[in-house]
Amino acid sequence: MFSAKRAVVPPNPLQKRIAIIGAGRVGGALAGGWVKARHSVTLGARDPHSDKVKALLHTLGAALATTIPKAVAQSEVVALATPWDGARTAIEAAGDLAGKLLIDCTNPVGAGGLALGHTTSGAEQVAQWAPGARVVKAFNTIGFEVMADTHFANGKPALFLCGDDGEARQAVAGLAADLGFEPVDCGPLRMARCLEPMAVLWISLARTGMGRQFAWALLRR
Amino acid sequence: MFSAKRAVVPPNPLQKRIAIIGAGRVGGALAGGWVKARHSVTLGARDPHSDKVKALLHTLGAALATTIPKAVAQSEVVALATPWDGARTAIEAAGDLAGKLLIDCTNPVGAGGLALGHTTSGAEQVAQWAPGARVVKAFNTIGFEVMADTHFANGKPALFLCGDDGEARQAVAGLAADLGFEPVDCGPLRMARCLEPMAVLWISLARTGMGRQFAWALLRR
Repeated sequence: MFSAKRAVVPPNPLQKRIAIIGAGRVGGALAGGWVKARHSVTLGARDPHSDKVKALLHTLGAALATTIPKAVAQSEVVALATPWDGARTAIEAAGDLAGKLLIDCTNPVGAGGLALGHTTSGAEQVAQWAPGARVVKAFNTIGFEVMADTHFANGKPALFLCGDDGEARQAVAGLAADLGFEPVDCGPLRMARCLEPMAVLWISLARTGMGRQFAWALLRR
Repeated sequence: MFSAKRAVVPPNPLQKRIAIIGAGRVGGALAGGWVKARHSVTLGARDPHSDKVKALLHTLGAALATTIPKAVAQSEVVALATPWDGARTAIEAAGDLAGKLLIDCTNPVGAGGLALGHTTSGAEQVAQWAPGARVVKAFNTIGFEVMADTHFANGKPALFLCGDDGEARQAVAGLAADLGFEPVDCGPLRMARCLEPMAVLWISLARTGMGRQFAWALLRR
């Protein structure tokens, strides 16, 4: 009868029980967003009473913290948000994950880039085949339709490029701008290890429903 | 005196002599754009008199075609726009490339993805460590600042995700939308081989001048 002053928060009909492993910045950001979206969030931590976890709980307001296995046991979704070198230990601590939805937010990033699976690139191979050439990787991350017509209603498409010669990169940036792209200088040629997978992703998305009239862009603020 | 009817095209002060190797769709798109931007474009082809090359020249209007070594010799910029399996032959045909700006537009794409350098991913490793879990790779391609605040003036940031369980991917897409992202379903878990390099690229761009307040987006038309 006298509930007018109580904040009435409508329940989220799609509410999920989510365990977040890792109380760092990624885990904190995800927890904050999902608490706001009225999911039930539990932090799973090696030490749920640590100052770090307490501080995060304080910020979040509506979340709990417990041990990793307890957080996992009571949740249907588990977000793995540890550093890569803590990922395996965290998974082993989690107990039985069978049937759980496990969101892997980690990246196998070592000192020199990806620690796993990325050891060279086509561009580096091309540079070996063309001794002395100033090789710049570019115009490989989108389909020809985008190169032929860079106009999109909602922004400029990005053109990622990389190479070991700064002047050559600048020249290619100019050639990309000539076509209407926003050039994005990604640094040395080995960054082609990142640009070539973007091509594979573009092709895969194009083939699986998105069609070929789309492009990458950067949002900034 | 009587030049009023002649089209006066102002010269491009940054005009470059560009050889394009490969008369396919990428080469054609780049040639078209660079001709419009008033660069001097020469197509380098194994057979410069082929119907394909003639048709492209006809479309372009202001471009020439010749053999690959001749096109390269007279150009300061060389765009390699062949299929990957023709790249090496084309480079060998090109002659001396020392000092040339060589734009590598190719992708080492084989039947099952990248032919070079990409053999596994952290996500696939995580799936091995967590038998039975429905692993979805997500929230790894942008920094925590973007996860904490997805608002950008000029569009929604994209959240790329992949996994082998379609229902699990849908659930994560919902969780991404809850945070204000545009979820982009990238298909099976092995696509993490493309998403993890995007993380490396994000980190690298953030560190080399772009700062951490940027995100990926998709443009569509």
